[in-house]
Amino acid sequence: MAAPVRHEVDLEVRYAETDQMGVVHHANYLVWFELARTHLCAAAGHPYADIERLGVILMVSAAELRYRLPARYGEQVRVACWVTELRSRSLSFAYEVRRAEELLVSGTTDHLWVVRDSGRVCSIPAALRAPFSRLAGESS
Amino acid sequence: MAAPVRHEVDLEVRYAETDQMGVVHHANYLVWFELARTHLCAAAGHPYADIERLGVILMVSAAELRYRLPARYGEQVRVACWVTELRSRSLSFAYEVRRAEELLVSGTTDHLWVVRDSGRVCSIPAALRAPFSRLAGESS
Amino acid sequence: MAAPVRHEVDLEVRYAETDQMGVVHHANYLVWFELARTHLCAAAGHPYADIERLGVILMVSAAELRYRLPARYGEQVRVACWVTELRSRSLSFAYEVRRAEELLVSGTTDHLWVVRDSGRVCSIPAALRAPFSRLAGESS
Amino acid sequence: MAAPVRHEVDLEVRYAETDQMGVVHHANYLVWFELARTHLCAAAGHPYADIERLGVILMVSAAELRYRLPARYGEQVRVACWVTELRSRSLSFAYEVRRAEELLVSGTTDHLWVVRDSGRVCSIPAALRAPFSRLAGESS
Repeated sequence: MAAPVRHEVDLEVRYAETDQMGVVHHANYLVWFELARTHLCAAAGHPYADIERLGVILMVSAAELRYRLPARYGEQVRVACWVTELRSRSLSFAYEVRRAEELLVSGTTDHLWVVRDSGRVCSIPAALRAPFSRLAGESS
Repeated sequence: MAAPVRHEVDLEVRYAETDQMGVVHHANYLVWFELARTHLCAAAGHPYADIERLGVILMVSAAELRYRLPARYGEQVRVACWVTELRSRSLSFAYEVRRAEELLVSGTTDHLWVVRDSGRVCSIPAALRAPFSRLAGESS
Repeated sequence: MAAPVRHEVDLEVRYAETDQMGVVHHANYLVWFELARTHLCAAAGHPYADIERLGVILMVSAAELRYRLPARYGEQVRVACWVTELRSRSLSFAYEVRRAEELLVSGTTDHLWVVRDSGRVCSIPAALRAPFSRLAGESS
Repeated sequence: MAAPVRHEVDLEVRYAETDQMGVVHHANYLVWFELARTHLCAAAGHPYADIERLGVILMVSAAELRYRLPARYGEQVRVACWVTELRSRSLSFAYEVRRAEELLVSGTTDHLWVVRDSGRVCSIPAALRAPFSRLAGESS
């Protein structure tokens, strides 16, 4: 079994993302995680906007963040994202935010496939099985 | 003609609303204006969620802000909102953000009635004419 | 040993807190947790602004969130917060976000006491020991 | 007198920037303006972080936005920024947000030079006069 596909996105810290502590407010890392996650989906050939057009949403069911060092205004950071677990009805991602080689924040998010109109949990749409298996590094 | 209905909402400044200048980031006042505006609509008997259920949205077409004094974390501020102009296809509101008697920020927003599905500008829905006229202080 | 002090804050969901999924964006719950946490500190007689004036900051070192049901625009939610663990150099809080009796989101955050100027981890300032022990439900 | 220096920054619309209307929430354009403005200052050889280290801040005193067409999640937009007026104690910028050639949002912001510690309005620091004159297209 291959390693999962790792996708990276480069960001510049925005002034509005800081708080009066002089560092990036801790909630913004979830926004950065999301940006990397949607890039990863796009890299699999399925931009998140397309996924929503299939009538499903990938709803966040849990998140964990570990803050080691703060990012600061104007810095360039790199956010890496990869799939850690792929099941029939759920999906997990891991993340690392780095400034150069230094690890600033790491985390995970868990997601459920949900039918947009009913809000009910569903299985991964058939059209997405193969591309997400490839993302997860499974031979499909 | 009567004065327009003035609605006020009390807010507590959140830590996440500050930036590294140590004051509220200037974009957040538009969020506060919006909160006061939707309260004003609710006070007219038409919560904004109900307006959207009529198939129309009140799209922002312009905004102006004048920043006099900054709000800071933990402070209590009061945001006032009232209708300044009511036309067939558009609507304008004015705002004042105060800390006790002190005026911190003032502004205006202009809005167009837009059909949700088509994105086309439309006239104010019939059901909303009387309540918005009352908000605007017009004898209806 | 007494139960920890539980503090609750009532919030109204803001339009700007929603995303195109039609529900509150998942990062905002960290902002709400923070609001409840700073209210809890204030209830202990130590508004967070005062804590920062002691030259220390309560830096977030980890966070966990479990999303069960989404909050929606215009709803009233109640965020509860209490101390779960109090050690010499760190502090943990738990949170629950409810709409009426329904649990929407729960979570925890871990924090370190950090000297503002040096960025170094430190012990809880002497002036805060007794009030935080009381918050934690410890006989002090 | 030469034309002012026009700086452009490319952005990808983030999911968290949308609201339940399905488009970018209108407050975010001020965040994008700010990003372009700080890039322009950096292009003049004075990253905004350096300006703050001179003990002054460029405080926003007014903003105007005109919303023509909404940006949507996943789109690439380009934000242009240039100086429109340079006076001894104040400075104004203009902005345009475009998707390909299409103008989505335009605006202006006015700023005052303020001494960080006292909060008092001041003249532009001597070190910044020449570079900002060049930005403004003035022969200096």
